Amino acid sequence: MSLNLKDYIASIPDYPEPGIIFRDISPLMASGEAYQQATNAIAEYAREKNVEMIVGPEARGFIVGCPVAYKLGIGFAPARKKGKLPNETVSATYDLEYGTAELQLQKDAIKPGQRVLVTDDLLATGGTISATIKMVEELGGIVVGTAFIIELNDLNGREKIKDYDILTLLEYDGE
Amino acid sequence: MSLNLKDYIASIPDYPEPGIIFRDISPLMASGEAYQQATNAIAEYAREKNVEMIVGPEARGFIVGCPVAYKLGIGFAPARKKGKLPNETVSATYDLEYGTAELQLQKDAIKPGQRVLVTDDLLATGGTISATIKMVEELGGIVVGTAFIIELNDLNGREKIKDYDILTLLEYDGE
Repeated sequence: MSLNLKDYIASIPDYPEPGIIFRDISPLMASGEAYQQATNAIAEYAREKNVEMIVGPEARGFIVGCPVAYKLGIGFAPARKKGKLPNETVSATYDLEYGTAELQLQKDAIKPGQRVLVTDDLLATGGTISATIKMVEELGGIVVGTAFIIELNDLNGREKIKDYDILTLLEYDGE
Repeated sequence: MSLNLKDYIASIPDYPEPGIIFRDISPLMASGEAYQQATNAIAEYAREKNVEMIVGPEARGFIVGCPVAYKLGIGFAPARKKGKLPNETVSATYDLEYGTAELQLQKDAIKPGQRVLVTDDLLATGGTISATIKMVEELGGIVVGTAFIIELNDLNGREKIKDYDILTLLEYDGE
C-alpha cells in the first residue's frame, strides 16, 4: 500500500518572499515510510538505467541522493558550494535571482564513462541541476538520468534539461 | 569480509590552512561498498539504542545520517545554517575559529520523548554536535547516541559531549 507523498510536502505561502509558495520536503523526510517510498522509487529508476554513481548538489541533493546510493551499493559524490571541497575541483556557475553562485565537484569524483544519476529535491528553474550536469560531463561522466522529488511545472526547468531523462515524483502547478 | 575504512579516507596536508591535516570522507562515499559498510555499522548501533529519529547538521551530517534513516525506516531531520529552514525553528550557536555560527532545527522536527541519534562525519572540537544536541533537547527529544565516521582524538570533542554515548568508526591522533 503506497502513500500519497503529496500528503508529506508542506506548502508554505510567501516564503522565502511574498508570492512564492515554498514546497518543503521536511515532513517527507521525517516519515520513515514516506522517505523509504521516495528513495525506493528513485532507486528503481536508477537501477533500470544501470547507474554507477550518484551526484547531488548541496544540501538537499544529499538528502535525496545518499539513501539511493546506499540502497544500490554505489557511490555518492557531493557537488558543493565554492570553497568547501579539498583537492582539485571543477566548477560551474548558475544564476540566482541576483547574481550568480558557484558549485564545485572534486576532479576524481567521476571516472570517464561512468553512468551518473543527478539528484535534487526540487526541479524549479533547473539552474542548479544544469550546473551539476555540466561538471559531471566535464569529468567525462555520462548523465543517464536526473531525479527529483518535486517539479514546479510553471518554472519550466524541464525545458532547461530537455536533453536528459527526468524522473519527478510529484508535480505542482502555480507557484 | 570487511574493508579497512581508513583506506577510504583521504588525508590532505595543510588544508584548509597550514598545519592542519584534513580528513576527507569523499573516497569512502565514492565507494558503494565502503559507504554501505559505514552506514550499516551506524545503523546497527542505532538499532540497539531503539533510535526513532536521526538529526544531522548541514551538510556532511546529511551524508552520514540519511542512509542510516533509510536503512532503519525512520525519519531524518536536518539541522541547517541560519535562514535555510522555513516555518518556526529553534536555534543554537557554536564557536568558530573567528566568531560564531548558528544552526537551526524546525520546531516540529522532534516530538517530545522521541529517541534521537545525532550524526556527523567528524568529531573534532564537538561544537557543531553540541549545538545540534542542544536544539534536539530544547524540543524534548532524548539524545540516545551520537555517531561519527571519524574522531580526531587530539581535539578532545569527546570531552565536550561526555554525557552522551558516542560511536566513532575511525580514530586519528595528531592533527
